[in-house]
Amino acid sequence: MSLLAQTIASIRPPSARAAVEADARQSQLTKPPGSMGLLEDLGSQLAAISGQCPPPVPSTPAVAVFAGDHGVHAQGVTPWPQEVTAQMVANLAGGGAVVNALARQVGASVTVVDVGVAADLPEAPNLLSRKVAHGTADLACGPAMTRAEATAALEVGVGVADHLVGGGADLLVTGDMGIANTTASAALVAALTRSEPSEVTGRGTGIDDPTLVRKTAAIERAMERLDRSDPLHVLAEVGGLEHAALAGFLLGAAARRVPVVLDGVIAVSAALVASALCPAATGYWVAGHLSVEPGARVGLDHLGLTPALDLGLRLGEGSGAVLAVPLVQSAARLLTEVATFDSAGVTGK
Amino acid sequence: MSLLAQTIASIRPPSARAAVEADARQSQLTKPPGSMGLLEDLGSQLAAISGQCPPPVPSTPAVAVFAGDHGVHAQGVTPWPQEVTAQMVANLAGGGAVVNALARQVGASVTVVDVGVAADLPEAPNLLSRKVAHGTADLACGPAMTRAEATAALEVGVGVADHLVGGGADLLVTGDMGIANTTASAALVAALTRSEPSEVTGRGTGIDDPTLVRKTAAIERAMERLDRSDPLHVLAEVGGLEHAALAGFLLGAAARRVPVVLDGVIAVSAALVASALCPAATGYWVAGHLSVEPGARVGLDHLGLTPALDLGLRLGEGSGAVLAVPLVQSAARLLTEVATFDSAGVTGK
Repeated sequence: MSLLAQTIASIRPPSARAAVEADARQSQLTKPPGSMGLLEDLGSQLAAISGQCPPPVPSTPAVAVFAGDHGVHAQGVTPWPQEVTAQMVANLAGGGAVVNALARQVGASVTVVDVGVAADLPEAPNLLSRKVAHGTADLACGPAMTRAEATAALEVGVGVADHLVGGGADLLVTGDMGIANTTASAALVAALTRSEPSEVTGRGTGIDDPTLVRKTAAIERAMERLDRSDPLHVLAEVGGLEHAALAGFLLGAAARRVPVVLDGVIAVSAALVASALCPAATGYWVAGHLSVEPGARVGLDHLGLTPALDLGLRLGEGSGAVLAVPLVQSAARLLTEVATFDSAGVTGK
Repeated sequence: MSLLAQTIASIRPPSARAAVEADARQSQLTKPPGSMGLLEDLGSQLAAISGQCPPPVPSTPAVAVFAGDHGVHAQGVTPWPQEVTAQMVANLAGGGAVVNALARQVGASVTVVDVGVAADLPEAPNLLSRKVAHGTADLACGPAMTRAEATAALEVGVGVADHLVGGGADLLVTGDMGIANTTASAALVAALTRSEPSEVTGRGTGIDDPTLVRKTAAIERAMERLDRSDPLHVLAEVGGLEHAALAGFLLGAAARRVPVVLDGVIAVSAALVASALCPAATGYWVAGHLSVEPGARVGLDHLGLTPALDLGLRLGEGSGAVLAVPLVQSAARLLTEVATFDSAGVTGK
């Protein structure tokens, strides 16, 4: 059995019993029932993931930034030159990008994974070379990847999750870098949620109207050839190498029973792939934030996930997900540390 | 000149020059312009507050939880007995309340201030005894406080801000505890934003319909006797001792040029008082979150503040504000640590 098949076969849904225990505990803590809103839901989810109540407070968050290039760049879907992907990988590996600064704030490590950058990259600390291909082919004209490439990239993601969890990470965070990758994301969201491309295609890093028209048209063209019932086919046809790796990362985390915080539309579109491959994995994922990209909302609704933050972000890299890490830690901490009405001698209502 | 008058006289608005510098720097960092949304606004606000760009990253957050009781409790506005205020002060001082757990997550200290609890409280570490009165009088029947009591409580807040900043705090966080204090908050919001009580009165900790009717009626009765053009009068007539202290705390922070994160409707209503007393102070405040209480949204709109979080919280204690602390720190960190396109050798679009 392949690593991917093994991983999927080993995934069990989070523990419903622990979630029920956590819900009951929430109502005994010294606060009005339900008054901590989304944090109570998150706490119960963490209990379910760990299978115990209270759940452990995650102390070792780790961000994996998967990087890849996109053949659809040739369609003029973004004003940014393709070499920016490689330049930003160097910036990420050097600690100078936004996600690095945010990760330092929350004590998270950042690992950059070259799964498909078009350029050959020099070695760097914190940079894992796992290149499956030098970028994808143009999804507007034909399959972005072969099925074998998509599977290989999925398995890269599984391996990175294993690597980080094996190294002590107890909370994974998705990151991405790839010029033009919101085009592939929108295509995945449109295909897997059966939405119109025009409803899920956004301005990415801030494109103008003619560019948005080209971007939407490229996606529309690709939709015509898809068999939407086969998620691996959809991924290979219109996804990116980093999307495939992210989907594998999400499955690998679920197999290891470790929670993952999703970043924006790139992660959400990868999560749609992973959820289609293995619905039971979905319970291990937390939506870090609501990206400005319209596909993010559509994808999260499809997955049944509620975003923790809504700050008008549209950067990627994992930036929005890292910002949500303290919320996840806080949710677990409440169940662990807050006194009960009984223990604190506080009268109920 | 009184401490309050001195404090107000010493407040200058944040530096517009530093904010402009920060806005310019945001566009040089390695990210698409505007892509970090609210965090960019926050970063520029922190630059303005500190008067320098990049602003220092706050490293020593301090929560002050002001506690008081409310005569309006006699109107049956809440199912919680009044003694819960004193019990929760003990829980807060002992580190067992929600805000304590959340503060530990972000490395913030918690100082509890008895400015008006009805009971005499035993001494405890982290509990400052600054009692101005044993609770307020019933705002439904007459003035909650005398003008002298309101002023004394305002000055307690100024003193606590001085005390915490003098001890090294570089980011203040508002907290509160007081059974029935959402009633006083709604009255302040109604009076100072000239809204209908029914539009700004909510279910607090989760009251039923008949209780909500009584709560709204108590506020409506109080509105009839108010001179809304005199904020100190409004505060004394319908506010709480903790509201007055919070307003002073907000003014004291502005006088010291230290940012403050506001919690929910209690802090927002106190901020309306402080802003009416000194509009220039408003630029020092960050809205930590959007409470479920309807008065929070109305008050924040009136103040022109955008909440960082919206998690469905309705606890108080400072819980929502503490959760926003890492966002504030992250906003400053971006301006300080992220590479520029030039320094990282990244091509622009």
